[in-house]
Amino acid sequence: MLDAEMHPTGGLQIAWENPAVELPRLGDPESYTLDVGQDGAVMKASSWRGVLHGLETFSQLLKYDGESWGVSAVSIQDEPRFPWRGLMIDVVRHWQPMDVIKRNLDGMALVKLNVLHLHLTDDQGFRIESKTHPRLHELGSDGHYFSHEEIRELIAYAADRGIRVVPEFDIPGHATSWLVAYPELGSAPGPYAVERRWGIFDPVLDPTNERVYAVLTDFLGEMAKLFPDPCLHIGGDENNGVHWTANAQIQTFIQVHGLKDNAGLHAYFNGRVHAILLRHGKRLVGWDEILHPDLPAGSLVHSWRGVQGVADAVTRGFSTILSNGFYIDLSHPASKHYQNDPVPADTMLSAIEQKRVLGGEATMWSEWVSPETIDSRIWPRTAAIAERLWSPRDVKDTADLYRRVALVVERLEEMGLQLERHRAVLVRRFAGEAAGARDVAALRTFIDVIEPVKEYQRGQYHAGHTQFTPLTGLADCARPESDAAREFADHVLRFLAGPPGLSFSSRETLQQQLMIWQNAGLVAANFLLARSAGFDAGAAVARGLETISGIGLSALDALTRGSARDVVWRDEQLARIDLAAQPHDAVQLPPVDAIRQLVHAAARETSLRNDRARE
Amino acid sequence: MLDAEMHPTGGLQIAWENPAVELPRLGDPESYTLDVGQDGAVMKASSWRGVLHGLETFSQLLKYDGESWGVSAVSIQDEPRFPWRGLMIDVVRHWQPMDVIKRNLDGMALVKLNVLHLHLTDDQGFRIESKTHPRLHELGSDGHYFSHEEIRELIAYAADRGIRVVPEFDIPGHATSWLVAYPELGSAPGPYAVERRWGIFDPVLDPTNERVYAVLTDFLGEMAKLFPDPCLHIGGDENNGVHWTANAQIQTFIQVHGLKDNAGLHAYFNGRVHAILLRHGKRLVGWDEILHPDLPAGSLVHSWRGVQGVADAVTRGFSTILSNGFYIDLSHPASKHYQNDPVPADTMLSAIEQKRVLGGEATMWSEWVSPETIDSRIWPRTAAIAERLWSPRDVKDTADLYRRVALVVERLEEMGLQLERHRAVLVRRFAGEAAGARDVAALRTFIDVIEPVKEYQRGQYHAGHTQFTPLTGLADCARPESDAAREFADHVLRFLAGPPGLSFSSRETLQQQLMIWQNAGLVAANFLLARSAGFDAGAAVARGLETISGIGLSALDALTRGSARDVVWRDEQLARIDLAAQPHDAVQLPPVDAIRQLVHAAARETSLRNDRARE
Repeated sequence: MLDAEMHPTGGLQIAWENPAVELPRLGDPESYTLDVGQDGAVMKASSWRGVLHGLETFSQLLKYDGESWGVSAVSIQDEPRFPWRGLMIDVVRHWQPMDVIKRNLDGMALVKLNVLHLHLTDDQGFRIESKTHPRLHELGSDGHYFSHEEIRELIAYAADRGIRVVPEFDIPGHATSWLVAYPELGSAPGPYAVERRWGIFDPVLDPTNERVYAVLTDFLGEMAKLFPDPCLHIGGDENNGVHWTANAQIQTFIQVHGLKDNAGLHAYFNGRVHAILLRHGKRLVGWDEILHPDLPAGSLVHSWRGVQGVADAVTRGFSTILSNGFYIDLSHPASKHYQNDPVPADTMLSAIEQKRVLGGEATMWSEWVSPETIDSRIWPRTAAIAERLWSPRDVKDTADLYRRVALVVERLEEMGLQLERHRAVLVRRFAGEAAGARDVAALRTFIDVIEPVKEYQRGQYHAGHTQFTPLTGLADCARPESDAAREFADHVLRFLAGPPGLSFSSRETLQQQLMIWQNAGLVAANFLLARSAGFDAGAAVARGLETISGIGLSALDALTRGSARDVVWRDEQLARIDLAAQPHDAVQLPPVDAIRQLVHAAARETSLRNDRARE
Repeated sequence: MLDAEMHPTGGLQIAWENPAVELPRLGDPESYTLDVGQDGAVMKASSWRGVLHGLETFSQLLKYDGESWGVSAVSIQDEPRFPWRGLMIDVVRHWQPMDVIKRNLDGMALVKLNVLHLHLTDDQGFRIESKTHPRLHELGSDGHYFSHEEIRELIAYAADRGIRVVPEFDIPGHATSWLVAYPELGSAPGPYAVERRWGIFDPVLDPTNERVYAVLTDFLGEMAKLFPDPCLHIGGDENNGVHWTANAQIQTFIQVHGLKDNAGLHAYFNGRVHAILLRHGKRLVGWDEILHPDLPAGSLVHSWRGVQGVADAVTRGFSTILSNGFYIDLSHPASKHYQNDPVPADTMLSAIEQKRVLGGEATMWSEWVSPETIDSRIWPRTAAIAERLWSPRDVKDTADLYRRVALVVERLEEMGLQLERHRAVLVRRFAGEAAGARDVAALRTFIDVIEPVKEYQRGQYHAGHTQFTPLTGLADCARPESDAAREFADHVLRFLAGPPGLSFSSRETLQQQLMIWQNAGLVAANFLLARSAGFDAGAAVARGLETISGIGLSALDALTRGSARDVVWRDEQLARIDLAAQPHDAVQLPPVDAIRQLVHAAARETSLRNDRARE
């Protein structure tokens, strides 16, 4: 770092090729090179967007050595693997206001994402102002929608960060909120009310009604002007056809027009919508389900259902983006998303087909996220997805990923995102007014180590929840991926893989962690039991933490001292762990697997020793 | 609570006497009554400000019973003991922008404070736009100042919450920032630069220079228009007279005008300023030091030096407000401020003199607070001061205070104040990029239990710090008063006062807490030692926590098992505690006193037992 001081003239020189354009576009060049030597740093970029990316990298290389800031000598040639690197935010199921979107745009720029996909209409709300049909947002939004002015502000804010904004208006299904204002556009008589629950619902636009296309012509025309990006997402997913099947006039229409079935009718509808979009120079984007034999050429297929969906689309000549495996609402760990490759090494696709895979999108569906928790659901796991979409396929060291993700977390929080900040409030509120400092500390430690249940399981635990139920419970305080649990599992792995003598420091680390958890579990369980009946389920999980920590300590003790642990003990402990591992109140205890490993190892060591004794 | 449902018509009826006025004024009636019965709630207030206070109380009484919200039957007659209940914020030493002031106004309204005193100019900055002499803020503020427009916005925001805004322009001392623009107004030749360090400095306006009064006439006239409150604070503190003594012309002036000494000159200056203020209908407020025999009648004395200052002022007929004992920058516990009564029970003042004590102000001097830490320095301790100034003298149960303060903390955070939120960020940043979840958790537990050193000691530890040194160290992460340490001390007291059999749950609680601290101290110390040399001092404190926790555990063990602890052991432990109790890096370990008590008790119990054995 002294070099930096010795060459105070060594600044950062930046050059870029293409002239600046006002708005980012799909396929813009984004590459840059960065060379840092003794005389300073030189950045050469293919475009202003490359400059933005290069500056993010440069700022991440800056290190403070206690006296001054500097960048070590380095030579970087960097360009994205995929041109479409997105984050979808569902602002419908739980409303996400301007400040949420803006601070997440900041986060996206940090990790070089370049598409913000706004899911704007669905059964649970119509979140965009319509000047042509104001009843849509007036009756369908509870007052929670983006005005045109706000959308323009967001688009400018995103563009400043090199990010495109792609809007989605989900039709013909997921359309209850349209029908609140205009029941006559539905396939059943109505009336309709904004949906407050989660799931797949029957209300659907009536593709046989010309008035539907009249409204869509006005509305999509209005949106085509408001959103400058050439891509416009029309959803198209999860249309269950119930109301179409039940409507004799619609079924007659299908027969008369030779459309074969409901799928044929959906394709007919898409064709009509495609024609409207074409008049406004827009490219149709839709979820998997739009991939019908009649899908117009040039459409873009957004695959939420899997790799097969991608293959089906690209072999038929359509470009695709992948979201399957990037569903960050399902509470999977970053490592899992990181391993999800849109074009895996063993792909059967031809080179030209592979080119049609434009990239992917992390999808933040918002059944279970509020403005208070959304940042901690999007981040840091979306950083792993961003890297998957930017870096070469063979960059996939998970341990190194987590090291770098930790840096991103700190930068995000400094930038104003609300991961740690909001957790502090959530935990304090969950603890309640009467909690002492010791109770809050124990709850914090306990909450650090639990995770929400995965996939769509939360709905089973909180079946009665609606759009209005506060998201302030244990599952909301917990993070989708517990750092404490992951680090513990890593330590157990290293400990068990270590030499038979067993590293002292490694054992110490495990022992300390288990003692802390045992204690925190005990205090948290007692506190929650004393609070009120609504907290009993959480208390059971805390008691589980105490139990498995105790089991872990005795396994560790056996491993250290070589005292006999037989299969009877082992099976008894495993049964106790199974019991403790039961999720309650939609949270689970991720350390159970590592504890099971310790128990198995304690019994194995013993039986090995017994074998040796018999020899 | 069922009652509330059975009487759904039972709303809240509000009536108030005096007609609404635009701005709150000193002495406005603020009382209200609130009666909640089965048929609803009735509030009667003496003014709209009483209504605001009543609504705060009402909202604090609202309870949720798991099904609905309600207020239990209650009858309240409430009025403030003092009409001046203030918070001073020093926006000079560390700049505090609009959002800091606004969210703290929200907090003030919650606890019924009614004066925001803005300390706007000092050696370290000139934080108010002057349209008559723009060079003052342009050269004296580094660009960090309130514009007239912002001040008007703050005054309106405060008025909506029943809060007056009183500005302070500290003269003739604490005036370096004036002299950057106008060195000719100083008592020494200059040039002057904005001061970046803390302390008492020599620069002072020259009271013998008519140009000083010309500038003050313009500037104070401008400020008198901008700030509608009749009170205007001119500081007047800590003028050390060095530059006056060194200036022969000034000393001649003193002689010629028969002013006797520098104090006489200061009084002459105040007389001239008083005349300027009088022309604008303003009442002069100043710190203790303005109380000179020549102080014009009607002036208001703000006592920072103590009860004697209050007595001196009121016996001479001046009204006063007290800040001595309410210096929240000195890191004292809430209980200490709570016990500080402007008119204590044993006062020697007559009834009419007591009436002249208008109230008090918490003073947030900002040498050691940034926008990131200020909320956690002001709150929750200022809630204790607010209660002291509102409630009757005999309301002084400290245990109950802390119970209620905990409720205030939660409400403040929900309102948007940044106590927990910012601590989360500070701790994460302090831990650094490389910290694992276990390290961060240990640091959090460690930081929960430390406190910044008290009074003005921090300056000794961080002597090299200036206005530009980031406030991101251990002393900034720590809270002025550790809840964890206070609760622990309470538990130790109860434990030692308990029956000889010793409560099991009480012992368990202490043991658990000590084990957690021992562990956290160990992990934090190792982590900090491994980080870099700059963290060694913090590591020493963490090691101290580990040490005293271990001593506490062995004392507890002795007390429980009745095993012999002799005076040799006792003195050895006390010596180890003394060593561990040494502050480092401006933080200290508050649990040391409780641990000492445990050690003494362990030795006492033993000697008692030995005594009995001898009998």
